[in-house]
Amino acid sequence: MSLLDDDRLFPADPRTRDLSRALYAQARELPIISPHGHTQPVWFAQNEAFPNPAELFVTPDHYVCRMLFSQGVRLEDLGINRLDGSPVESDPRAIWRRFADHYYLFRGTPSQMWVDYSFEHVFGITTPLGPETADQIYDQIAECLAKPEFRPRALFDRFNIELLATTEGPLDTLEHHDTIQASDWDGRVITTYRPDAVVDPQARGFLDNLDRFGALVGEDATTWDGYLAAHRKHRAEFKKRGATATDHGHPSAQTADLSDAEVRALFDRVRQPGVSAEDAELFRAQMLTEMARMSLDDGLVMQIHPGSRRNHHAGMFDAFGPDKGFDIPGRTDYVSALRPLLQAVGLEPGLQIILFTLDETSYSRELAPLAGVYPCLKLGPPWWFFDSAEGMMRFRQLATETAGFYNTAGFNDDTRAFCSIPARHDVARRVDSAYLADLVVTGRLREGEAFELIHDLTYSLAKKAYRL
Amino acid sequence: MSLLDDDRLFPADPRTRDLSRALYAQARELPIISPHGHTQPVWFAQNEAFPNPAELFVTPDHYVCRMLFSQGVRLEDLGINRLDGSPVESDPRAIWRRFADHYYLFRGTPSQMWVDYSFEHVFGITTPLGPETADQIYDQIAECLAKPEFRPRALFDRFNIELLATTEGPLDTLEHHDTIQASDWDGRVITTYRPDAVVDPQARGFLDNLDRFGALVGEDATTWDGYLAAHRKHRAEFKKRGATATDHGHPSAQTADLSDAEVRALFDRVRQPGVSAEDAELFRAQMLTEMARMSLDDGLVMQIHPGSRRNHHAGMFDAFGPDKGFDIPGRTDYVSALRPLLQAVGLEPGLQIILFTLDETSYSRELAPLAGVYPCLKLGPPWWFFDSAEGMMRFRQLATETAGFYNTAGFNDDTRAFCSIPARHDVARRVDSAYLADLVVTGRLREGEAFELIHDLTYSLAKKAYRL
Amino acid sequence: MSLLDDDRLFPADPRTRDLSRALYAQARELPIISPHGHTQPVWFAQNEAFPNPAELFVTPDHYVCRMLFSQGVRLEDLGINRLDGSPVESDPRAIWRRFADHYYLFRGTPSQMWVDYSFEHVFGITTPLGPETADQIYDQIAECLAKPEFRPRALFDRFNIELLATTEGPLDTLEHHDTIQASDWDGRVITTYRPDAVVDPQARGFLDNLDRFGALVGEDATTWDGYLAAHRKHRAEFKKRGATATDHGHPSAQTADLSDAEVRALFDRVRQPGVSAEDAELFRAQMLTEMARMSLDDGLVMQIHPGSRRNHHAGMFDAFGPDKGFDIPGRTDYVSALRPLLQAVGLEPGLQIILFTLDETSYSRELAPLAGVYPCLKLGPPWWFFDSAEGMMRFRQLATETAGFYNTAGFNDDTRAFCSIPARHDVARRVDSAYLADLVVTGRLREGEAFELIHDLTYSLAKKAYRL
Repeated sequence: MSLLDDDRLFPADPRTRDLSRALYAQARELPIISPHGHTQPVWFAQNEAFPNPAELFVTPDHYVCRMLFSQGVRLEDLGINRLDGSPVESDPRAIWRRFADHYYLFRGTPSQMWVDYSFEHVFGITTPLGPETADQIYDQIAECLAKPEFRPRALFDRFNIELLATTEGPLDTLEHHDTIQASDWDGRVITTYRPDAVVDPQARGFLDNLDRFGALVGEDATTWDGYLAAHRKHRAEFKKRGATATDHGHPSAQTADLSDAEVRALFDRVRQPGVSAEDAELFRAQMLTEMARMSLDDGLVMQIHPGSRRNHHAGMFDAFGPDKGFDIPGRTDYVSALRPLLQAVGLEPGLQIILFTLDETSYSRELAPLAGVYPCLKLGPPWWFFDSAEGMMRFRQLATETAGFYNTAGFNDDTRAFCSIPARHDVARRVDSAYLADLVVTGRLREGEAFELIHDLTYSLAKKAYRL
Repeated sequence: MSLLDDDRLFPADPRTRDLSRALYAQARELPIISPHGHTQPVWFAQNEAFPNPAELFVTPDHYVCRMLFSQGVRLEDLGINRLDGSPVESDPRAIWRRFADHYYLFRGTPSQMWVDYSFEHVFGITTPLGPETADQIYDQIAECLAKPEFRPRALFDRFNIELLATTEGPLDTLEHHDTIQASDWDGRVITTYRPDAVVDPQARGFLDNLDRFGALVGEDATTWDGYLAAHRKHRAEFKKRGATATDHGHPSAQTADLSDAEVRALFDRVRQPGVSAEDAELFRAQMLTEMARMSLDDGLVMQIHPGSRRNHHAGMFDAFGPDKGFDIPGRTDYVSALRPLLQAVGLEPGLQIILFTLDETSYSRELAPLAGVYPCLKLGPPWWFFDSAEGMMRFRQLATETAGFYNTAGFNDDTRAFCSIPARHDVARRVDSAYLADLVVTGRLREGEAFELIHDLTYSLAKKAYRL
Repeated sequence: MSLLDDDRLFPADPRTRDLSRALYAQARELPIISPHGHTQPVWFAQNEAFPNPAELFVTPDHYVCRMLFSQGVRLEDLGINRLDGSPVESDPRAIWRRFADHYYLFRGTPSQMWVDYSFEHVFGITTPLGPETADQIYDQIAECLAKPEFRPRALFDRFNIELLATTEGPLDTLEHHDTIQASDWDGRVITTYRPDAVVDPQARGFLDNLDRFGALVGEDATTWDGYLAAHRKHRAEFKKRGATATDHGHPSAQTADLSDAEVRALFDRVRQPGVSAEDAELFRAQMLTEMARMSLDDGLVMQIHPGSRRNHHAGMFDAFGPDKGFDIPGRTDYVSALRPLLQAVGLEPGLQIILFTLDETSYSRELAPLAGVYPCLKLGPPWWFFDSAEGMMRFRQLATETAGFYNTAGFNDDTRAFCSIPARHDVARRVDSAYLADLVVTGRLREGEAFELIHDLTYSLAKKAYRL
């Protein structure tokens, strides 16, 4: 018995399915390159057991929590802490049962496929989750978690991960990465520089963050020159912990290329309380160009993740903080927005920028045409709500004809949920196999090319795009 | 011989087709829930025979008239009255022949499938409409219409309609609904409160409408307090005639949450002639939030139908009035637009808002992410131009992965054309069967789940979403 | 051996594939109508041999050059001249080898299908292009080009082209069209009036262009009356060279309908140096309505190609000039933008406007609803980045249900690459065959209707839309 169909995500047509299987058989054996994600380095530094099934699968997974919330389950009842410290559910089994009761809500969603994959492949579970099986599955997972072979490093090795990048902020001391590097474990876990907390004047605590940033790095980050120097020094520290990339999560893809006098005046304004929305946007915009210039010097690849309207409900943000499912995509322009940066440095040899989107209309209209001509631009894989079978297929169908395959950057799992890493890569490998098989069967690609491409899409392109 | 392929809208792949058939076989037997539409209550109150084939199939159907107009047929020649009273075609057979001559224009459109379904299933016609068959088909339909079993109530029963909601404006006395309720017929026909005529300051005759609204309800609707009281009283009257929902057709989805002083000042401004476009938009926006607050009290479900740029050609509007095919969709934002309402009342238990769109780009980018977290939001089915096989399939493919199935609201036929009701539900049931079958065959859903879901999508979700 | 799969672009399902083949077999025999494109009339006037493979396939093809540039190949190394006259690669074989080295980049793109088609069907090549075959294929093409049967007129006849329209600007003397008309060759090559250079105040040299335009036509184009008269006279000259259409490539679809006094004042302003962006946009907008009014008099069909943000990188534009791959689509509104023109003349009998888009979101939301009601509007085929198998299929799936087939305008190849003409029409014929076959197999169209439609989509609709 099995939770998963061996042929899942392969087209129904027998000939196309056969070829999909053959392509996937090759992809399945390849190690995982995970160049962008949000797992915790402390897991691999300390290698402690994951505490219980609820904390592994429910509480930290914003996909899961938002769906349950949409159907009336309170976040408190899923064990999510309130900022005011008032009590929330602390019994992991009670949380698990709530999850099981509502698991039917995930029918047809990627979450179900990820969870079922982890259940079956990581924990050997073969019966579907539901009210009747909740306790039995809880016990089976809990029993596994107590064993050494389910500790983070063992799972990392078992998942066949060749490289895993985490993401750290500008105030992070990187101590866990130091611990990993100093250990005798040979798993390759690297960091990524995500400076939003000192780049976005609307970030919570921005002015304090500047002070802490300067203190941490040993520069006066309250002057423009010191601020830039602090970034340069901190980027170098990240590089020492393996970083090959930076990451920038902005509300829009706006860039700017101001004069030195303009940018100094702007920096003075954003260091005042009550910064205007226009100045905040302009500063973020300018900083993308500044970061691109630093990349020309130190070779770090830039990732731009724009377009999320974060914390859509102020009350939920005040009660629970960020990343609780209330981030909603919005329309995102790239053509005008990226132009100042591209005019300034877009043709510089060695610059590499990986673009992501939450606005699928941009794939064929903007992103593929841009990546199909600017040497510095590569298209990242479908992101967040679009990290799904349909989302991946739409990306290939909308982007390939204009950008080709070789202006794309392979797959990212982008996950906070460690056990979902192999599940997500499996989905991407299956969808790419299905897409390539369809191209072959409809006479748009030769079979030999498809076998080369499945290797590139699964493995080589990610290594090349991220300079790994 | 048959007009329709028994396997229409099922995928070509044999295995997927077989499963589609099996799912559809279950859906086909279920009664019709029609919670939103524009049929006339007078039909069911008076139960008179429909006058002739042209008035049943051509003159009132804006899909049909706009397509014929686009190819050079004048609306006058289809029997559509001019506001100036100048003569138009009055011979229904002549109108019918024009329809038949141009029926090839509907190839590949939903109209052809709806008309052919009605021809075959309601009137027993088995030859395609065209110039040679026009008269024969006209005669066959006319003959039927003269029989008692083709009167509205008999067709309602024959169509297996469990519930039908009509839509009435704020100046409607609901007399036909009273007649239906008082009759010995047990068909369930309910009304829906659509207050646009007294909510939209740009509606024709808005100021007069306010006076008439107050007089009808017995409140002074020219004061803010009296205006709100009038809505509350009229909503209660609608509820007495079975209403479980309100409906709001606005140019945008903009909402607002003004202070009491601001809204009183705004109400004073919109009661002046020559209201500005900004004030009109702001008043509509505020009224959505006011209506949501009333829903918290009386439990009526809100429907928001935004995004139609109505009466695109002023000359046609002046000559023929509204709803003649010159309403064109436009880009519609939901994320920023709905935020004021959602901040104000979006987490209130018991609030239910069903969202529709004419901008398909919003499905995956905005609507599914919003409905996938806010408990009050449900996604309505594809609307108007998208009430079609391709439109329905795109909706499922774009919305399901993020919103799931259980944040959607089942099917609406939304029709003015009574005979098209079973035809439209049939299309929805077939497309949903095909979509679910494909999920099963591609390993994304278990077969048992698909059989549960086809029942939910066809029947249960509509009843639950509309509180029927 | 063969470069191309005989069944390419047909669906995998055997029954659908069989019907696609049968439909395509009929389409393949039809002559090519090419009512919009950018081939050079001098080719057919002088009928000289094409110089070498690189100048035929690489240097003039912006699709090819932009893809190679995106992966680090300099335009100079593809033989593209710099405006400053500094030396570029002049060895066509070296250019060809660079193309061959990078030909794998085109996997999955329309360029590969077009090039492979031309290789096989025009030059008899049956081995894929790559580093090892570059020289052999170069030699084989070069050998062909030296033969009389590979001269432009011979290829035109061999390609079974019934009519080919080129596109000329307002400063063109049309001498090559005169030569073609005066020759004894019976190939039908006509021109198209594209007045952008004297309509867009932001066009390079606009003020000089006005002077030259007036001088060429014999009117004082620096006065509003003389300017309009110049257009009217030049349109008549184009009509004498067979033109049945005008073409308008604007950044947006904005139209305007100013009063006489307003437009005269505007014309005065745009004739000053340093015109504002707003005035430039307004003048282009007004000129679309002026051109529509002229079309009412002379019967020329209008084509509107909006939405390209041209010359995205100023440095590349300064170095190499326009049309080098740096034109990027952007969001394009039609509903509000076209309204002034449509209000003014949109219901006039005899007006015909063919709309194109680079924003695929407009198909179902704006263009199909507009073309489905306004008699003057027809939808042009997928354009530029969307002239591809996926792009064509999306167009049919998104537009047909609302606009039907008969509000579309057949296929355009829109190419600068002569040998790609049959390749591009072949793709369109195959995709339309596949689309129609799928409609039949899924019960949405009768088989006899599909055979009528494939003829219409391939041949009749283009002739009718362009009044050929």
